Amino acid sequence: MNYIAPIKDMLFVMHNLADLSAVCALPDFSDTEPELAQAVLDEAAKFSQSIFSPLNQSGDQYPSTYKDGAVTTSPGFKKAFSQFCQAGWQSMVHPQRLGGQGLPRLIANACNEMFNAANLSLSLCPMLSDGVIEALLAVGSTAQQQQIIPALMTGKATGTMNLTEPQAGSDLAMVRTRAQIQEDGSYKISGTKIYISYGEHDLTENIIHLVLARTPHAPEGVKGISLFMVPKWLINADGSHGQRNDVHCVSIEHKLGIKASPTAVLQFGDQGGATGYIVGTENRGLEYMFIMMNTARFAVGTQGIAIAERAYQNAVHYARERIQGKDLSGSATPVAIIHHPDIKRMLMTMRATIEGARAIAYVSAAACDLAHHHTDMRIREENRAFYALMVPIIKGYCTEMATEVASLGVQVHGGMGYIEETGAAQLYRDARILSIYEGTTAIQANDLVQRKTVHDGGAAVRSLCARIIETETALAHHGKAAMAQQLAQGRHAIEQVLTYLLSHIDTDTKAVFAGSVPYLKLMGIVCCAWQLARATLAALTHLSKDPAFYQAKIMTVEFFYQSILVQSSSLAEMIIHAGAATIALPTEQF
Amino acid sequence: MNYIAPIKDMLFVMHNLADLSAVCALPDFSDTEPELAQAVLDEAAKFSQSIFSPLNQSGDQYPSTYKDGAVTTSPGFKKAFSQFCQAGWQSMVHPQRLGGQGLPRLIANACNEMFNAANLSLSLCPMLSDGVIEALLAVGSTAQQQQIIPALMTGKATGTMNLTEPQAGSDLAMVRTRAQIQEDGSYKISGTKIYISYGEHDLTENIIHLVLARTPHAPEGVKGISLFMVPKWLINADGSHGQRNDVHCVSIEHKLGIKASPTAVLQFGDQGGATGYIVGTENRGLEYMFIMMNTARFAVGTQGIAIAERAYQNAVHYARERIQGKDLSGSATPVAIIHHPDIKRMLMTMRATIEGARAIAYVSAAACDLAHHHTDMRIREENRAFYALMVPIIKGYCTEMATEVASLGVQVHGGMGYIEETGAAQLYRDARILSIYEGTTAIQANDLVQRKTVHDGGAAVRSLCARIIETETALAHHGKAAMAQQLAQGRHAIEQVLTYLLSHIDTDTKAVFAGSVPYLKLMGIVCCAWQLARATLAALTHLSKDPAFYQAKIMTVEFFYQSILVQSSSLAEMIIHAGAATIALPTEQF
Repeated sequence: MNYIAPIKDMLFVMHNLADLSAVCALPDFSDTEPELAQAVLDEAAKFSQSIFSPLNQSGDQYPSTYKDGAVTTSPGFKKAFSQFCQAGWQSMVHPQRLGGQGLPRLIANACNEMFNAANLSLSLCPMLSDGVIEALLAVGSTAQQQQIIPALMTGKATGTMNLTEPQAGSDLAMVRTRAQIQEDGSYKISGTKIYISYGEHDLTENIIHLVLARTPHAPEGVKGISLFMVPKWLINADGSHGQRNDVHCVSIEHKLGIKASPTAVLQFGDQGGATGYIVGTENRGLEYMFIMMNTARFAVGTQGIAIAERAYQNAVHYARERIQGKDLSGSATPVAIIHHPDIKRMLMTMRATIEGARAIAYVSAAACDLAHHHTDMRIREENRAFYALMVPIIKGYCTEMATEVASLGVQVHGGMGYIEETGAAQLYRDARILSIYEGTTAIQANDLVQRKTVHDGGAAVRSLCARIIETETALAHHGKAAMAQQLAQGRHAIEQVLTYLLSHIDTDTKAVFAGSVPYLKLMGIVCCAWQLARATLAALTHLSKDPAFYQAKIMTVEFFYQSILVQSSSLAEMIIHAGAATIALPTEQF
Repeated sequence: MNYIAPIKDMLFVMHNLADLSAVCALPDFSDTEPELAQAVLDEAAKFSQSIFSPLNQSGDQYPSTYKDGAVTTSPGFKKAFSQFCQAGWQSMVHPQRLGGQGLPRLIANACNEMFNAANLSLSLCPMLSDGVIEALLAVGSTAQQQQIIPALMTGKATGTMNLTEPQAGSDLAMVRTRAQIQEDGSYKISGTKIYISYGEHDLTENIIHLVLARTPHAPEGVKGISLFMVPKWLINADGSHGQRNDVHCVSIEHKLGIKASPTAVLQFGDQGGATGYIVGTENRGLEYMFIMMNTARFAVGTQGIAIAERAYQNAVHYARERIQGKDLSGSATPVAIIHHPDIKRMLMTMRATIEGARAIAYVSAAACDLAHHHTDMRIREENRAFYALMVPIIKGYCTEMATEVASLGVQVHGGMGYIEETGAAQLYRDARILSIYEGTTAIQANDLVQRKTVHDGGAAVRSLCARIIETETALAHHGKAAMAQQLAQGRHAIEQVLTYLLSHIDTDTKAVFAGSVPYLKLMGIVCCAWQLARATLAALTHLSKDPAFYQAKIMTVEFFYQSILVQSSSLAEMIIHAGAATIALPTEQF
C-alpha cells in the first residue's frame, strides 16, 4: 500500500501547537510566509509518495550488495537520490549563503517525516549528510564549508558519521582510531569503524566521512578525541576529484531491517593512512560530534513517527478491506474488521500515540528555530533549554513507540502481517533499529537524567511543569476540568519523580539510573498529553470550520488520556520504588 | 550461543508450585515417580541442546524450499525429527495402550518448553502431531486411532490442522471447503486451505491432514462444519501406502520468522477430490477442532516462554561478555555491560516475566492432569474450570510477553542485536508469530471475556480470586505483609474489572470488548504475581538448602512486584474507563 502524507495533521500541529507564525516572523525567515508551509509540504508529499515510496518494498527485497570493496545500492535508489537533491530537499534548512534554502526546521522536519515514512532506508542517507553539514557549519573552517557543503547539498557527495569501533559502541572513551599529523597540516588516519550507515555506496561520486580519532599523546578518554574530515576521493583545489583516499569498505552487515541502506565496516589506512583534515580544534571532537548527534537524534525520533504513521496507514487500509466476523452489535453478514473493538483499540492506540509524538516533535522543532534565530536572547535561552530537554525524549520515546506501533500494525493484519508481502513485517523490522542507533534508549535516558534533569538542579523540568500548569488552567477555563485533572496527575507524577531523582542521585546512583528509561517514557507520555490537551483546545476553537476533522482530534486525545496517560502514576511508582530491586541480584546469579 | 535448559527453575516450579507429587499420585500415573521428572528433563535437555538447538540458526538461514509441489526442509531437520520420534518424545503424553508413554502433561510440558527454545521452527511439527493425536483420541473411531496414532508417534507421519481459508481466518463460519460423501462412506474433499504449518515437507513419508469442511446441505455458519482426516498418501488395510491423495501444496509463504517451518497453501481436490474420512459426527467439527485448539493454544503459550527464555540467555551471555563504559559506582576501566543499571533493568524484566509465565503455565498443566485423571469428580471439575480459564491467558499473555522479551533481548545487544549473526534478531522475528497463530491475542481475549468470565457469571474468576486471597493470607503469616498488600491490590483490580464486565457486557458490549486484551494482560500479570508469591514462600522455606538459588528467586519476585505488578491498577482503570473512547471514532475517520 502506498503512503499518503498526513498533511492535514502536520499543518494542524504546525499552526496550532508549534506556532508556525511566530517562527516565520523571525527575521532570518523573512522570506518564509506561513502559507509557504503548505506549498512545501504538498511538494514533499508528492515527491515522497511518487519517488521514494515505490522503492521501499523493493529495496527490502533487493538490499544493497557488496562486492570487492564496492557497494551497489538497491534498484532505483541512485536515480531517486539524485532527484531528491535536484529538487532541493537536501538543502532545506541550510544557509542561503552557501546555496541552501534557509527554511525553518519546523517545516523541514515535517518534510523529513514524509521522506522517512516513504522510504526509511533511503532517507537515512540525506539525514547523515545533514549531520555533516551541521557539524561543518558549527565548527568547520570557511574553506571546509565552502568546499564541502555545496557538494553535499547538490548530491555530488554524501556524508557519514564515524564513531563506533568494534570495541567502542556507546562508550567513545574507548575510540582507538589514530590520527598522525603530516607536514602539510593534514593527518594520516588509521583504524576500523563499524556500523557506518552509507559508509560506501554508489549514489554519489564522493563520500565525506567525519571520523573520531586520537592524535598521539592525546589525553585518555573522551577528552582526547578529535574530529577529522576524510573524503573518499581527495578533492583538488579546483573542486575536482584527486586521488582515491585510503579508506575502504571491507564488508556490509546482514541486518534485521533497513536492508536497502548499506551498513559498512570501514578500514582507514590499510595502505599507509587515509588523508584527513582536522575539523575545529584538537581534542574537542566529542563536543563537535554532539552537534551532529543532537540533530541526528532528533531526526531519528522523527523517523520513529514516520514509520509509525506508515504502519498505521497500512493497518487502517487492511482493516477496512478485510471482511471477517460479524459485528458485535449484530450484523447479518461478516463485516470489515475495523468494526471489531480490539481492532479499534489497536488502531486508536497507534493513532493517538503518533499524534502525540508528532505534536511534541514539531513543538520541539519550533523551539529549535526560536533558540537559534530569535532576537531576544532570553527567549533563545528558554527555547534552547526546552529543546535540549526534549531531544532525548523525542529520540527515546518516539522510537520505542515506533516499535510498539509497528508491532500493532502486524497484529492488525493477523496472519497476513507475518507474511512479508503485506509490508507490515518490513515496517516492524525497519523500526527496530531506531531505538538503537544514534544512541540507544538507555543512552538517551542517561542524558535525560544527568545532563537534562539533574545538571541544572531540575530547572528545565520545573519550567516544563510550569508550562503544563498553564495548559491545565486553560483546560479548566474551557470546561475541560476532568482533562485538566488528568493532566495534573501526569504532571504530578513527573514532579514526584523529579524530587526523587534530585534527592537520590548521589546516594543511590545505580538505583536512580535503573529508573531512567521508565522516566524517559513517563516524560514522553506526559509531554504528549500536554500537547494533545493544547490540541483539544485548538480543535474546540476551530470546531465549526471542519467538524469531522476537529471532532476526530478531540476523540483521539480523549482516547490518549483514558488509555495511555493512565500509565503515568504506575510509571512514577515503578521509578521511585523499583530501583533497589532492579540492581539487587548479583551479576553471577543471572 | 547455545541454549541451556533451565532445569533447576523448571523443577522448582514443578515441585513447589505445580505439586508434582499430587500429579504423580494419580492412579493413571502410577508408573511415574516424582523423581522420574528430573531424569526425563535431563534427557530432554540433552536432546534439545545437542540435536535441535544446533539447527536453529541454520534453519533460519536456509529455510524450507518449495519446488514443483514438494517441500525440502532445512538441512538436518529430517534426521533430527527422526531422532526425536525414535527417542520417544512424540509419544510422551499419549496412552500406553497405543504405544505412548502416558506421562503427565506437567512433565511433558517442561520438555516441550526445551524443544521449542532449542528450535521453534522444528518443534512446531510435533506440536501439530500432538494436536491431531488429541483430536483422534477424543473423537476418532477405534480404527482411526489404531491406524493413525502409532504412525504419528513413531514418525512415520506427522499431523496438520487445516482451518484457515483465504476468506476465513479467525472466522470459521466462513469455511467453504466442500465434502461430498461417496458410496463407500468416505468423502471427496475440495477447497483451498492456507497457513498450514508443515502442510507439506520431507520429514516423514506420510502427512495426516485434519480438515474442516462442509457437507452438502450442512447448516450455515459454524454449526455446519465437519472434521475430516485426509492423508497425503492413502493407507491400505495392512498399513502400507496406497495411492497419492488429491491434496497438493501449491506454494509456501515467505515469512518474517520461523522460516525453517514450511507454511503451505494446500489445494484439495484439483483432480476430482481428495479422499477424506469423517472424524466423529457430522457438523460437530468446530467442537472437535477446539479440542485440538486448546491443546495447541496452551502449547503456543509454552512456545512463548521458550523463546523468551532463549532470548534471556542470549542477552545475559552478551551482557557478561561485552565490555563498555565505566561502572556508575566508579571503576578504573570499562566493565561488562551487565553492571549497568538499565541492562540490569532489561535483564530483570526478562527474567521476572519468564519466571512468572513459567509458573502459571506449569500450574495450569498440572491442573490439566488433575482435570483428566483425578478420581474425585469435584476436583476434576474444579481443575477443568481453572485450566479452561487459564488457557487463553497462557496463550495470550505468554506470547505477547515473548515478543516484548525478545525485543529487550535485541536491545541488550545494542547494534549487534540488529545484525542477524547474533541470533537476537531471529528470536525477535520468530517470536512475533506466537501472538497470531492458533488464534490472535484478541481471539484469546474474547474467549476469556465471553466463555471463561461472563458465561458462568464470573464464578471461575471469583474462585481464582479466592485462591489468591489464600496466598495473601499465607504471605501475611510469613512476614510478607507488604507483598500481601500488593497482591491484594492486583486481585482487587481483577475484582473491579469483573464487576464492570458483568454489569456492562449486555449494555455496552463493544466498549467492554475494547478492554478485552488489557483484561487478558491484567489477568496474566496478577496470576504471575500470585504464583510468584507462592514461589517466595517456597523459597523462604527452603532457603538454607541452596541460599544463592532461593535468594535469587526471592529477589526476582520482588522485582516483579515493584516493576510489573504495579501496572495492574492503571490497567483496571483503562479497562473500566477507556472503552467508550476506544470505539467512539467513526470508522471513516481513521
